[in-house]
Amino acid sequence: MGGLQDGSADLADRPRTWRQIGSLVKALVYHGPGQKAWEEVPDPKIIDPTDVIVRVDMTTICGTDLHILKGDVPGVTDGRILGHEGVGTITEVGSGVGTLTVGDRVIISCISSCGACSYCRQGLPSHCLNSEGTSGIGWIFGHLIDGTQAEYVRVPFAETSLHKLPKGVSDEAAVMLSDILPTGFEIGVRNGRVKPGDVVAVIGAGPVGLSAMMTAELYGASRVIAVDLDANRLAQAKSFGATDSVNSGGADWMDELMAMTEGGLGVDVAIEAVGVPQTFTMATDIIRVGGTVANVGVHGCSVELRLQDLWIKDIAITTGLVSATSTQMLLRMVTQGKLTPENFVSHRFTFDTIMDAYDTFGRAAETKALKVIITP
Amino acid sequence: MGGLQDGSADLADRPRTWRQIGSLVKALVYHGPGQKAWEEVPDPKIIDPTDVIVRVDMTTICGTDLHILKGDVPGVTDGRILGHEGVGTITEVGSGVGTLTVGDRVIISCISSCGACSYCRQGLPSHCLNSEGTSGIGWIFGHLIDGTQAEYVRVPFAETSLHKLPKGVSDEAAVMLSDILPTGFEIGVRNGRVKPGDVVAVIGAGPVGLSAMMTAELYGASRVIAVDLDANRLAQAKSFGATDSVNSGGADWMDELMAMTEGGLGVDVAIEAVGVPQTFTMATDIIRVGGTVANVGVHGCSVELRLQDLWIKDIAITTGLVSATSTQMLLRMVTQGKLTPENFVSHRFTFDTIMDAYDTFGRAAETKALKVIITP
Amino acid sequence: MGGLQDGSADLADRPRTWRQIGSLVKALVYHGPGQKAWEEVPDPKIIDPTDVIVRVDMTTICGTDLHILKGDVPGVTDGRILGHEGVGTITEVGSGVGTLTVGDRVIISCISSCGACSYCRQGLPSHCLNSEGTSGIGWIFGHLIDGTQAEYVRVPFAETSLHKLPKGVSDEAAVMLSDILPTGFEIGVRNGRVKPGDVVAVIGAGPVGLSAMMTAELYGASRVIAVDLDANRLAQAKSFGATDSVNSGGADWMDELMAMTEGGLGVDVAIEAVGVPQTFTMATDIIRVGGTVANVGVHGCSVELRLQDLWIKDIAITTGLVSATSTQMLLRMVTQGKLTPENFVSHRFTFDTIMDAYDTFGRAAETKALKVIITP
Amino acid sequence: MGGLQDGSADLADRPRTWRQIGSLVKALVYHGPGQKAWEEVPDPKIIDPTDVIVRVDMTTICGTDLHILKGDVPGVTDGRILGHEGVGTITEVGSGVGTLTVGDRVIISCISSCGACSYCRQGLPSHCLNSEGTSGIGWIFGHLIDGTQAEYVRVPFAETSLHKLPKGVSDEAAVMLSDILPTGFEIGVRNGRVKPGDVVAVIGAGPVGLSAMMTAELYGASRVIAVDLDANRLAQAKSFGATDSVNSGGADWMDELMAMTEGGLGVDVAIEAVGVPQTFTMATDIIRVGGTVANVGVHGCSVELRLQDLWIKDIAITTGLVSATSTQMLLRMVTQGKLTPENFVSHRFTFDTIMDAYDTFGRAAETKALKVIITP
Repeated sequence: MGGLQDGSADLADRPRTWRQIGSLVKALVYHGPGQKAWEEVPDPKIIDPTDVIVRVDMTTICGTDLHILKGDVPGVTDGRILGHEGVGTITEVGSGVGTLTVGDRVIISCISSCGACSYCRQGLPSHCLNSEGTSGIGWIFGHLIDGTQAEYVRVPFAETSLHKLPKGVSDEAAVMLSDILPTGFEIGVRNGRVKPGDVVAVIGAGPVGLSAMMTAELYGASRVIAVDLDANRLAQAKSFGATDSVNSGGADWMDELMAMTEGGLGVDVAIEAVGVPQTFTMATDIIRVGGTVANVGVHGCSVELRLQDLWIKDIAITTGLVSATSTQMLLRMVTQGKLTPENFVSHRFTFDTIMDAYDTFGRAAETKALKVIITP
Repeated sequence: MGGLQDGSADLADRPRTWRQIGSLVKALVYHGPGQKAWEEVPDPKIIDPTDVIVRVDMTTICGTDLHILKGDVPGVTDGRILGHEGVGTITEVGSGVGTLTVGDRVIISCISSCGACSYCRQGLPSHCLNSEGTSGIGWIFGHLIDGTQAEYVRVPFAETSLHKLPKGVSDEAAVMLSDILPTGFEIGVRNGRVKPGDVVAVIGAGPVGLSAMMTAELYGASRVIAVDLDANRLAQAKSFGATDSVNSGGADWMDELMAMTEGGLGVDVAIEAVGVPQTFTMATDIIRVGGTVANVGVHGCSVELRLQDLWIKDIAITTGLVSATSTQMLLRMVTQGKLTPENFVSHRFTFDTIMDAYDTFGRAAETKALKVIITP
Repeated sequence: MGGLQDGSADLADRPRTWRQIGSLVKALVYHGPGQKAWEEVPDPKIIDPTDVIVRVDMTTICGTDLHILKGDVPGVTDGRILGHEGVGTITEVGSGVGTLTVGDRVIISCISSCGACSYCRQGLPSHCLNSEGTSGIGWIFGHLIDGTQAEYVRVPFAETSLHKLPKGVSDEAAVMLSDILPTGFEIGVRNGRVKPGDVVAVIGAGPVGLSAMMTAELYGASRVIAVDLDANRLAQAKSFGATDSVNSGGADWMDELMAMTEGGLGVDVAIEAVGVPQTFTMATDIIRVGGTVANVGVHGCSVELRLQDLWIKDIAITTGLVSATSTQMLLRMVTQGKLTPENFVSHRFTFDTIMDAYDTFGRAAETKALKVIITP
Repeated sequence: MGGLQDGSADLADRPRTWRQIGSLVKALVYHGPGQKAWEEVPDPKIIDPTDVIVRVDMTTICGTDLHILKGDVPGVTDGRILGHEGVGTITEVGSGVGTLTVGDRVIISCISSCGACSYCRQGLPSHCLNSEGTSGIGWIFGHLIDGTQAEYVRVPFAETSLHKLPKGVSDEAAVMLSDILPTGFEIGVRNGRVKPGDVVAVIGAGPVGLSAMMTAELYGASRVIAVDLDANRLAQAKSFGATDSVNSGGADWMDELMAMTEGGLGVDVAIEAVGVPQTFTMATDIIRVGGTVANVGVHGCSVELRLQDLWIKDIAITTGLVSATSTQMLLRMVTQGKLTPENFVSHRFTFDTIMDAYDTFGRAAETKALKVIITP
């Protein structure tokens, strides 16, 4: 990457486009449940004046990609290029793009936002009303349009959806800002209204749960309790910001956890980062009067909400999809060395071995994979 | 009442106590499910130095009192004097009371708070840890200690639980500030984070739902939509702040309501003021992305929360018991003529006819009772 | 205007442009201090893909225009078309504009914002870093680029700077949302953190001060006290939301005002809407402990801040330039009939008589002009 | 202190009082400008039922005490015992005190608050309306009533003004929570609205400025820049949370500082912790558009506020006196080892040598004193 960074000045005088148009490019293509292939695809082109084309320098795989491959996400159809995370270099800019230049290194946010619709204006670009097909959802890469697990990707609404990378930040740190770090922070910590002194429990120590743990200190949590069934992940959590851990497989896990809270009254904030009914109920069981349950998990079915107990407890329950409104702030923290998200990288692959990357990430319990990165 | 107000100066020189100690007093006493009687009771006495005794000049009946009489509130035992709302005049003050005087007219808040425990200090006196028996609940009148449906009542933590009444405010307006107006405002409007321009739906047009409608304008709601099954209550809602109404008995009630919202996307705030699973689900069905469901209803069973749809919607669901931290503000609005809660009074009774008051209030659908007031 | 509204459907099939390119147009042109003329100018053309051209259906004059004419605003040079407020109809759209169409009726916000820079993303488009010449100021119309006192105007960053007008809103109401109503609300009421029950003093009963009074109810002010030297304006203030008034020419004006506050402790919020040292000091003199002084006035010199008294008072002093982030909300309130800013219109002119409009507005004390509107 | 902690169980059965009433006690008494003496004084007694008596186990000296000794604080009269910081053990409780017990170890907050007046209820106990003489100021120790530089001290409103100490917290850490740590946090960091990613400048690296630096991380500051004239203090600041430092004696200090900010636009938050016009102006010079200047310094004269530049900059300027509403939270952080305020202790004295303590603290520039502690 070093070369690119240093070379960007040279590129600046080659405006609007940079590479050989029409050359063959490769990408990971979805072909229905269980079917995917790294294959040649049409070279992505500028469609709207606000588009840019980005050469992907690094991408990664998300749990959502695994769901797609199971056929669980109906919006994804045969032929779709997967992936919604990535770091890259701009190779072409649309005629309406003023502040981005060929050669700029950028983080590709998992959320595309027009910057002008009512949701974008109110700070909820995750529900951008002008994204592809007026779907009312800002997550379109590898979903409603072609994604980032590719050599090149078209990025719509580029000026409001890309983040320029300062020189000192590595690709490995930056790619975590495409999705997981802002997700853990915005939907876990920020929605959870963590405040100085709070005792925070994070249920689920996967990459997003760990992201919530890592960023809980940004609002001064006094204790961050990792809750999981896997002893290995609990041990690992300590290096991602957890101060304590509780194995929820134990019969007395709740007593153990409550003893870590002020007066045994419960946690100030419970962050659910799994997505099944049992863990959601755990979150509402351990919350103190006046606390907040921040749901981060992607749920596939209803949960029972015990309002007969909770109506009186002055709690809030929040949900959400990342809006990436914190990406700039997180980038500042990374630049200052206050956050080190490169620690999420557990395995490294190249585009040639992207099928292995999926295999490794798909067997995370076994391989201890956190985030697998893929480079050209 | 006029006499009392004018006479307070004369009383001021009779500090600490005012009436004949030991005289017989009367109160409404609970004697188990379905059993109550207006009968003679021991004269209430100062127990703690922070207590005062208040002569009740006006009280009223709450839906919760009906629940108690059905035997639904296990904390209430045989012999308990009912009632948690009232306006009165101080007749005796404890040795630790410095800022209240015999003769002061006061609102008796339904919440008793010590002002010193961690919940009181963080603005949640509804969960005061020092209230009777360290129950962790600030609602103790007519529940854990004797209440306000009585000629005299002992008020613990008087300085932090009573509100002095300025001269211009009538008892009929003031008694609504004991419970229903702060409940509708704090748990509905304030928890719901109503903000200028919002479209607010209030499901349930009973006294507390109407209180939420009346106070939604304090944060600049642009539309307040009353939702109920009862055409009479919907009509009435218009005089309590509702700008629109929807009869939820209609097959297309939801289409009708959504058409009243910006872009048909849903309401900004949905306030549930009934307390059954169906109305809670209605609230989560009509909420827009980024909106808030504020639950005010007292629920007796679990509800189904459709997290498979809601996890992505960036919503908040809140619950709570009134903390009466808004009482002073509401009193200011009443004093300025900006709120007229005396309009809630539908029927008037005296202590002698308190059994009739219960009967009228208990058949509210039929009698069109909103709040029935009871005076000496 | 009715015709235009009804005709917009017919226009929709004439995309991108609508009028005769190259035809002669007229505008009010600044020619140095004291010099202005309504004269022929070059027809404005699309420059950037994100531009649109708007036919001006109504404009108005701001106090700032008078300052410019005095030569007080150095950024304005000979040849500049004046004006930063207006309502119009889109006649041409740039290639990068996706959500606006020829024929759309729009409010032209006084602030132009790119929607992508760091200030725009944090809700401060008034300091947009990509506006004309990277000036770091979003107010560019009639300042750094040609303005709205013209038959046609080019609008940069159209999608993030224009607001589509719903059918029921009149031009006379809408034009007040270009500048004065959001200024009074955002810089006065919102910066002032007005909250339910507050006693608010607004010093200066000109159009912006009146806008603050009109919108103070959106956060539930219990009293709104107009403070001015002019008895006529104070009387007028009562129809713009003031509940009380104090003539600051009186020797005991401060006693009079303090008597209107809770316990005589001072106002919760003081909004300075004049812009001279004396009125700023008045604001800091009447503020209570814990209150906020929101400065709206445009100041030309330093003020003395009595920190020897104020350091202990837990106050906040705020300043600002309107960001127009409240325009959509205010438009909703106007649509619902909750705000009636058309009441600001005191005089009506046409482009032919725009010099008279300036004359009338320039002698406001004498003519009692509030806002003068100008139409084709 | 260890003995006391362990012995508290034994003390619990000796309710209400603990020591020999009437025994002789000693204290530091003010006798007019420049005059003080460690001398015998009347034994403090319970006056109001809400009082307690505390045996002082540790106290310290504040810059304010030096001001008093210069005669700068007119409210302090001959005979007053000085001091408003301390940690001690309760020896006697008033009849109205329910939740504190003889033998409890407590932090004596510099602010006394009734918990019931309008300011206390709104979270501003620093302006408690029921404190001594209805002064409207919560700082009364060593000011309006006798203070903590004494063997024993009477504490009014004990339940709302004392903080029980958990066992693991040392007196040296705890005594910093009487005043400096909450002052730096509440008036600097919290008023300054520090948020994750912010660049914060703290002007003045004395104990309170260092407290602001130490607590800025509680809201996720990305950089904390210490600004001072003293190279020694700047070096020291690094161990109290500063990430950078700027010597304001340098000619280009401002360029140097601005280069540390995002885009050179200025700091997000400037905390003034000196109290002279020059440093206040520095704070307003370095603030970015949209930033906050939090004044912590105690000012003795007016400052010039350049509103001709600042009116447009969307800034807030805040002032305040600590309310100690953060003390419980800070105590939690200390308990968890997240804050180590014991590092402020630079010198240790006993009551016998309290005059030396004053001498050392009074020559802080020379002795490098930060906080001097004094124990029996």
